[in-house]
Amino acid sequence: MLAMCARIAPDDQRKRHSPDSLLRIAVEVFTLRGYDGTSMEHIAAASGITKSSIYHHVRGKEELLRLALRRALDGLSAVLDEPEARSGKAVDRLECVIRRSVEVLAAERPYVTLLLRVRGNTPTEVWALEQRRAFDRAVAGLVERAVADGDLRAGLDPRLATRLVFGLVNSLTEWWQPDRGDPERMADAVVALVFGGLLRR
Amino acid sequence: MLAMCARIAPDDQRKRHSPDSLLRIAVEVFTLRGYDGTSMEHIAAASGITKSSIYHHVRGKEELLRLALRRALDGLSAVLDEPEARSGKAVDRLECVIRRSVEVLAAERPYVTLLLRVRGNTPTEVWALEQRRAFDRAVAGLVERAVADGDLRAGLDPRLATRLVFGLVNSLTEWWQPDRGDPERMADAVVALVFGGLLRR
Repeated sequence: MLAMCARIAPDDQRKRHSPDSLLRIAVEVFTLRGYDGTSMEHIAAASGITKSSIYHHVRGKEELLRLALRRALDGLSAVLDEPEARSGKAVDRLECVIRRSVEVLAAERPYVTLLLRVRGNTPTEVWALEQRRAFDRAVAGLVERAVADGDLRAGLDPRLATRLVFGLVNSLTEWWQPDRGDPERMADAVVALVFGGLLRR
Repeated sequence: MLAMCARIAPDDQRKRHSPDSLLRIAVEVFTLRGYDGTSMEHIAAASGITKSSIYHHVRGKEELLRLALRRALDGLSAVLDEPEARSGKAVDRLECVIRRSVEVLAAERPYVTLLLRVRGNTPTEVWALEQRRAFDRAVAGLVERAVADGDLRAGLDPRLATRLVFGLVNSLTEWWQPDRGDPERMADAVVALVFGGLLRR
């Protein structure tokens, strides 16, 4: 549906948007003002096209939210579907998931940032939170298997470890910028800390 | 100045607040709406006292922001001043700082959460960001000394390591609740991950 947004209505010659650029602007406004505090007027003002032009193509702000969150969730879901995340030793699969999650975060940062702020006030937010929980359960399952394999510390709480590791990964949205190092170097640093810790062996 | 807030003006009998409870409400509103999106009307509505009653005691919302951020920053600053953080081996001082930071975050969670959202649009926010940077520099200095002592991995980037470790610590504001385990257990889990990593030794 958003694919139609590139056709700007004749009464609105001020600005043209690709579906991506309109979505990107909506995400910026949601992140800045909070989803609840954002109106379609705010998105229209930020995008430089009229509210009715936006409504011609999307049903409302919740559809924009769903498209944005789907983009982040599709990226994370694809991480779990990668061949290296699906077979092999659990500890290696876990490393692949962490490494690729850092890269998805770097590639889709505004969308992942929005996803991390979702608190569950609308059906779309409830859906997104459930998707995040499913991702966390899959990761916690890998941690559990890697402990059982004897590769990770015995006695580790898989859910707590998953929360701490993804707390670290997600915190990159707060400060990481492309000019602070490429995503691969960030992923190396995160993996080294998470698996090996800071202490010299 | 806020200490006067407990005296409610005669025209405002709806609700009484201690200085702490008024500040706590202001912090909740700032966190929910963003500082820029919050007006004194919003704080008055949330606290159940009139705007003029609040103005009688504080100059405005920036003073409330400063009091709230000072509370978080005083807590973190006290961490660096603890005897165990000031003398001994750098690696032990670092552990103390991380452990106590988790505990401050647990004790002052709303204030630390607000501090983490500050982006530097007002003089108070600029001041708070500078205080945070000074804290980060002190921690990075400890990391650097612990690497030089041979206790932490050679080749570690002290600033990057500090960002990652405090990214992890700060991410606790996103999900940790007192009913999810006591602060000491959380601090143990964070210290174990940060220093030892997940891998079995």
